[in-house]
Amino acid sequence: MSSLNPDNLLARLTPKNKSAISRLISIVESERTNSTDIMNELFPKTGNAMRIGITGPPGAGKSTITNQLTKLYRQEKYTVAVIAVDPTSPFTGGALLGDRVRMSDIGTDEGVFIRSMATRGSLGGLARKSVDTADIVDAAGYDIIIFETVGVGQSELDIAQAADTTVVVLVPESGDSVQAMKAGLMEIADFFVLNKSDRPGADNAMNSITSILQLKNVEDTWKPEIIKSIATENFGIELIKNEIEKHRQFLINDGKLTERRNRNLERRVKAIISDRLNEKVWNSWRSGELSRKILSLNETGSSPYKLAEEILKKIL
Amino acid sequence: MSSLNPDNLLARLTPKNKSAISRLISIVESERTNSTDIMNELFPKTGNAMRIGITGPPGAGKSTITNQLTKLYRQEKYTVAVIAVDPTSPFTGGALLGDRVRMSDIGTDEGVFIRSMATRGSLGGLARKSVDTADIVDAAGYDIIIFETVGVGQSELDIAQAADTTVVVLVPESGDSVQAMKAGLMEIADFFVLNKSDRPGADNAMNSITSILQLKNVEDTWKPEIIKSIATENFGIELIKNEIEKHRQFLINDGKLTERRNRNLERRVKAIISDRLNEKVWNSWRSGELSRKILSLNETGSSPYKLAEEILKKIL
Repeated sequence: MSSLNPDNLLARLTPKNKSAISRLISIVESERTNSTDIMNELFPKTGNAMRIGITGPPGAGKSTITNQLTKLYRQEKYTVAVIAVDPTSPFTGGALLGDRVRMSDIGTDEGVFIRSMATRGSLGGLARKSVDTADIVDAAGYDIIIFETVGVGQSELDIAQAADTTVVVLVPESGDSVQAMKAGLMEIADFFVLNKSDRPGADNAMNSITSILQLKNVEDTWKPEIIKSIATENFGIELIKNEIEKHRQFLINDGKLTERRNRNLERRVKAIISDRLNEKVWNSWRSGELSRKILSLNETGSSPYKLAEEILKKIL
Repeated sequence: MSSLNPDNLLARLTPKNKSAISRLISIVESERTNSTDIMNELFPKTGNAMRIGITGPPGAGKSTITNQLTKLYRQEKYTVAVIAVDPTSPFTGGALLGDRVRMSDIGTDEGVFIRSMATRGSLGGLARKSVDTADIVDAAGYDIIIFETVGVGQSELDIAQAADTTVVVLVPESGDSVQAMKAGLMEIADFFVLNKSDRPGADNAMNSITSILQLKNVEDTWKPEIIKSIATENFGIELIKNEIEKHRQFLINDGKLTERRNRNLERRVKAIISDRLNEKVWNSWRSGELSRKILSLNETGSSPYKLAEEILKKIL
């Protein structure tokens, strides 16, 4: 039993002790009572890992790139933790696509830790827990953390923004790239990867990304590049790795790494407060009471906004 | 000036007075001080419109289907309001894709009101404001409201769930349908449309949707159908309209329409409360103070969770 004690787990936190890492993540993910204490204790040990976000539309090849990139880092003996965030619904489960199957060749490497995170409850909670998970593997001593997320909704963007460097992966297919830009990926990209760049339409896609990039703030000292890759053939992965390093050096030289991490921390504190407030409201308000109020909404001449104000007054 | 008075606008709210409708939407969208009063006053006049959600991955043909469906309803003299919700980023604006251009033929019809809503601030706010907009056109007397949204993130799902009937549009293309299911579209679909059904892979897509549907709760009395369409050739639109009507009759006969609307109202009240709480926190907390706390996070031995608790204590 003592091995399940969080203090023991924290003491035994090393890159190789994957079972201690997994257990701590599970405790935090399920929000057991001591999870905040664990996060508080961990926090001073974090900040050493390099955090990379890899995002883009479904089917762009993010898993393959993550896989290949991890292998390159492993060749240089860096330990790598992959946090794959998947807005999978509870109904379909996470087993349908089996993205993670493709990762099986790195999954057996003792210097690689892989954790898939799926939606349990709110997507907002998912973003917060993914960052908590990053803190755990960071404190455990992993050198590199890769967040791999589908870049379609706000929360996935939140996760990508928790990284030091965010890579947006696009493909030449019709509309994909432009649609991706619409979803807000343009703002968060430190650079782009045009994967499957041997497919028809690659030149068009390059042109459209380039022209959109010209709209970006000209005063930014960092100019996002577009890197072509064919991840399934391991083409372009070295270039991606170099660009990540180049961006990292830019951040460090320019004093921007601390700035960026502080901005991410600010966002994180706000998200925690927002979650806590919602919990407080719905714990103090008896379940069923809202339903009853709703039923009488039409007779009482109330409205959703009036009802919300009424509930807020009772609570605060 | 008196024409800008919300009371005057409310009094003049008819399907044909599109400028009054637009002004009220703008007031509510920009959260001007009187927007809650407006929503309160409007609410008792809502509930008559049939609310349809059309969602699916980017490029599935949602705009074309919405366009054609609107024309069918117009042939029967129903007035139609289209609320097109687009998680466009502030950086790229909404002009890139010009989905709405395709709607220009219905846009000039005096019985059709079209409003595009893009992200301003949080996506959560977007969902709430889209439902507010629906209340405004409902109160104005529109017969049918169509929410057209990209079904990729949580908030877009929220919007689709604000409808009486939710239609999920998929295409035969590789992976799209399965990916869409992963994003939670399966749970919210009252029926599916397989658009562009003349393309290669249509049979495979039909099979995969069918097999997934078999996983659904067998005790549900409503069985979601899959309808094939080629919207650009106006093929299958009548079938979609019939299926919407069939679902509506099912809801009414089974007493489920009120139940569903009440569930949506409950969600809505919760969302309003959540937004209000966040506003209260960040209004009472001086800007800059959080940034300073973050800067001293490492020296004070604090953590994001401790800091969040500290701020919450000060506020509550």
